[in-house]
Amino acid sequence: MLRPRVTLRFYHSVFQPKALLDDIIKGTATHELFQELGFLKQSQSGLVHWLPAGLRSLNKVKGIVRRRMNQDGDAMEVSLSTLSPRFLWEKTNRWAGKELFKLKDAKKSEYCLTPTCEEDITTLMNTYINSYKDMPLTVYQITRKYRDELRPRGGLLRGREFLMKDAYSFASTEQEAMQIFQKMNTVYDKIFQDLKVPFVSAWADTGDIGGDLSKEYHYLHEGGEDTLMICDHCNETSNVEKCESFPEEVGLHNGDVSVQYALSKDHNTLICFYYPKDRQFNWNMAVSTVDGDVDVELKYAGNDSVLQAFQRPDDEIMFSRILRVMDCRLNSRSNFPDFPLTKFLKNNFGQLDEVSIVAAEQGEICGSCEEGHLQAHRSIEVGHTFHLGTRYSESLGAKFTDRDNNSNAIMQMGCYGVGISRLVGAIAEVTRDEQGFRWPSSVAPYLVSICGKDEKLIDEVAQCIGSEEVLTSFNPKLGLGARIKLSHAMGVPLAVIVGPKNWPKVEIEIRGKRWASNSWREQFGSLQEAYDWQIVSSAPEKHLVPVKNLARVIEILLADL
Amino acid sequence: MLRPRVTLRFYHSVFQPKALLDDIIKGTATHELFQELGFLKQSQSGLVHWLPAGLRSLNKVKGIVRRRMNQDGDAMEVSLSTLSPRFLWEKTNRWAGKELFKLKDAKKSEYCLTPTCEEDITTLMNTYINSYKDMPLTVYQITRKYRDELRPRGGLLRGREFLMKDAYSFASTEQEAMQIFQKMNTVYDKIFQDLKVPFVSAWADTGDIGGDLSKEYHYLHEGGEDTLMICDHCNETSNVEKCESFPEEVGLHNGDVSVQYALSKDHNTLICFYYPKDRQFNWNMAVSTVDGDVDVELKYAGNDSVLQAFQRPDDEIMFSRILRVMDCRLNSRSNFPDFPLTKFLKNNFGQLDEVSIVAAEQGEICGSCEEGHLQAHRSIEVGHTFHLGTRYSESLGAKFTDRDNNSNAIMQMGCYGVGISRLVGAIAEVTRDEQGFRWPSSVAPYLVSICGKDEKLIDEVAQCIGSEEVLTSFNPKLGLGARIKLSHAMGVPLAVIVGPKNWPKVEIEIRGKRWASNSWREQFGSLQEAYDWQIVSSAPEKHLVPVKNLARVIEILLADL
Repeated sequence: MLRPRVTLRFYHSVFQPKALLDDIIKGTATHELFQELGFLKQSQSGLVHWLPAGLRSLNKVKGIVRRRMNQDGDAMEVSLSTLSPRFLWEKTNRWAGKELFKLKDAKKSEYCLTPTCEEDITTLMNTYINSYKDMPLTVYQITRKYRDELRPRGGLLRGREFLMKDAYSFASTEQEAMQIFQKMNTVYDKIFQDLKVPFVSAWADTGDIGGDLSKEYHYLHEGGEDTLMICDHCNETSNVEKCESFPEEVGLHNGDVSVQYALSKDHNTLICFYYPKDRQFNWNMAVSTVDGDVDVELKYAGNDSVLQAFQRPDDEIMFSRILRVMDCRLNSRSNFPDFPLTKFLKNNFGQLDEVSIVAAEQGEICGSCEEGHLQAHRSIEVGHTFHLGTRYSESLGAKFTDRDNNSNAIMQMGCYGVGISRLVGAIAEVTRDEQGFRWPSSVAPYLVSICGKDEKLIDEVAQCIGSEEVLTSFNPKLGLGARIKLSHAMGVPLAVIVGPKNWPKVEIEIRGKRWASNSWREQFGSLQEAYDWQIVSSAPEKHLVPVKNLARVIEILLADL
Repeated sequence: MLRPRVTLRFYHSVFQPKALLDDIIKGTATHELFQELGFLKQSQSGLVHWLPAGLRSLNKVKGIVRRRMNQDGDAMEVSLSTLSPRFLWEKTNRWAGKELFKLKDAKKSEYCLTPTCEEDITTLMNTYINSYKDMPLTVYQITRKYRDELRPRGGLLRGREFLMKDAYSFASTEQEAMQIFQKMNTVYDKIFQDLKVPFVSAWADTGDIGGDLSKEYHYLHEGGEDTLMICDHCNETSNVEKCESFPEEVGLHNGDVSVQYALSKDHNTLICFYYPKDRQFNWNMAVSTVDGDVDVELKYAGNDSVLQAFQRPDDEIMFSRILRVMDCRLNSRSNFPDFPLTKFLKNNFGQLDEVSIVAAEQGEICGSCEEGHLQAHRSIEVGHTFHLGTRYSESLGAKFTDRDNNSNAIMQMGCYGVGISRLVGAIAEVTRDEQGFRWPSSVAPYLVSICGKDEKLIDEVAQCIGSEEVLTSFNPKLGLGARIKLSHAMGVPLAVIVGPKNWPKVEIEIRGKRWASNSWREQFGSLQEAYDWQIVSSAPEKHLVPVKNLARVIEILLADL
């Protein structure tokens, strides 16, 4: 845990707050706290400069993700240019994206600053992958990404420039692609376990990035922007956008009914999705009730435009198919809107019942086990895995020669993102308390601080711990109490308190949280006498040890933090 | 040197060339070689995607620079946003820079992609530095930088997106600033020593970045874009732009004379710099002959504009001062251009002789020791240190309270750059030979390759070395000879050749170069019997050792490579 070094690195106190800490922390939003405590500085809306403490935490997250990607994901690290040319984005129909930062060079060539890299990576890998023998293959990078959010908010949670790990997998068959998708979800489980903060994974809507199958990784947090539905029976966890639910009893809705029109892909069927007016229509669930046979180009077009697209001569309309999809909460006495067409044959009407096409609500029945009830939880999304299928490889012409010697086989792709800077913000948000940050040791900018006023003793203790993970540098004007408070506010898991009173013993005050394990207890039991190690207070928890045994005791304590 | 790991990482052969290596290497420019051997891929002009092997080398350079900056430079790492707002660049008069990539966000705010970060870092640090007690202070970052070169060339040597380490120092006095400048040059010496490739440091022109004092770090190389002058007596090394030289004998130039006009800062003196027409005028040396009293705003204005700026009523002109600065190579019989003014008083003429205001040429006398002769060398610049003085702190209002309690004191700054990606390109260029790359072990993507055809034996050897630094993955179609050739071409310092013939002994073929030391010889002398270690060939140098002693022998051999 502690990496011993000959040279000690001191965190310069110039970035630390000089004012009273209580004032700084009280009621301060996490993003402000980052700035007050010298982790980072917002330069412009949605843009930050990382300062030494913040960069240390960022690099620790990066290290954990990189190690797991290499070791468990068998993924190869690459690093793509941030500037991506317009023509690639036109091929995938993403150049019009509203949140793309775009620029022209001196020769008037157009580029965007990449928000994700499907276009570039697919083009790149297509030059190296020729045969099914070259796959499966996963590459990843940890680079800055850009998204011109109109309303950047929440600091690191939604910035315009952010550090992201994005991985891309290439497979020769859908089965192989599914295997990588599963493998990558195992890697993600390990990454989030390494970070120590409890997390959930949820089935998710694939959204605009496309594809068929998608999982999200979340921290449950009441201030989060997402809503997850967790079944109290089968534990199935889904983003509310993806969650199928049923009411305790069907057909109880007697109020107003809303309708959403859609057309089948061949435009010969008018689909009328009926649902309770007081509920939120869910497109994805609606589309899946008709096995995906919907022209999604008309998704945002509005009912009038859909009807217009359906218009044709009267006698043709009469013979067109009309499909009514009824949310199971409706009954025949519900207040339906007028049907827009006047001429039609009753024989051409179809109807689907007993489906659910609205967003799930707390307390409804789980659509997966059909037994448990759904609990709603607010959450912060920190990772996302997608099975993309051929969404990008098709439009970018990523082909290979398959086992049957077909040289026009299309690669099966997946993509897997972790917001590295977002994770720093999210972990801060979900673990902080009224004293400030309370990092797990995996992400803490320093593992130990040495608080005292006697420089000679501080130096001696620092030498004795001998690690880059030690914070010893405080503003000289801060008294001992303020230094401990600052160490706690910065979220350093252990504060070593050094003074002439106990010398050559020192106190260790525990700021960190024991996330899951309590392995220190056993060690304490067997070693307390040999180490002359006492617990002198329980709230706050304080230990007393001779300085000569400090390094070993710190290591034991950190194992659980 | 070898970091042992439980898990071995294999470099996937998908990026390796499949064709015959001799064809690939022969006459191939270094930038092409990078692509042919799968180190990187050019995506657009001046932009590259880094592939696994290239990224490994890049990260090694990064690691060396970071370690020295922390350990010897006492510098703190930060990481600034790449997007810098227009108003900051207007303050320093750099927004008009032709090579800035510029963009607008959705709200029409303008930003550039930073090529260097003086504007942002000065603004940032000004919020934290209040007193002389907060200084000296050095911060640095290793981030991508952007420059919209109209003619990007030489691949990594002059890209439009590149990885740079840029450091900035803040000091309360010029003396303190000089101390940091010197300290940072010591750090640079260590960085370049760590990289192992012989380098020179040279006094340099400060150019457009401004400031007073500047040193460059170069690799001598006949294909380089820079020219250094090195004195064969005092060894003083300068960029030709900064090098003062004198002819063997003064006043020998009888041919045509050119003139460059300039005005003193108060515009009351017309300065006429005369120099041999066949030599290149050197502005900086010319300006220093008049103690810097030149209006540099007119530097690129041209003679006519200077004369126009000097125009005033006849009677005033008559009394204006005119200063003639004569390059020492001229004599009175040289063919001078006509003097542009008709009315003037002879008394107001001044003349400076015995100065040198043209670019040095090979064989001339060194202006520093005035004894030796100058030798011209082509070179590649890879690092640059500047004492900036108050060039940026003044225009950005970076003030502090000094020892005399003056709260308007202006910070003294320095900046220090190392082109990380450029270094990878430059080291490749100066160390490669007809067999391909020949990396020093500091930068090699892998330290050892294992070449063989028997997967079981290869695995056994890999386990026995147990390091992330081992390349074992080759295209299955490549024979043993081709694998060794590829390993050599990729510049891996040691190739371990594994086969049933010698088993359980293996051959080690040395591809790397012994840069300075030969410490292995002594070890070989004392250990050859105990290790059963033989040298079986000298050109190419091949060793034979039992596999059980391989790890130790590799470590000994790598120490010199």
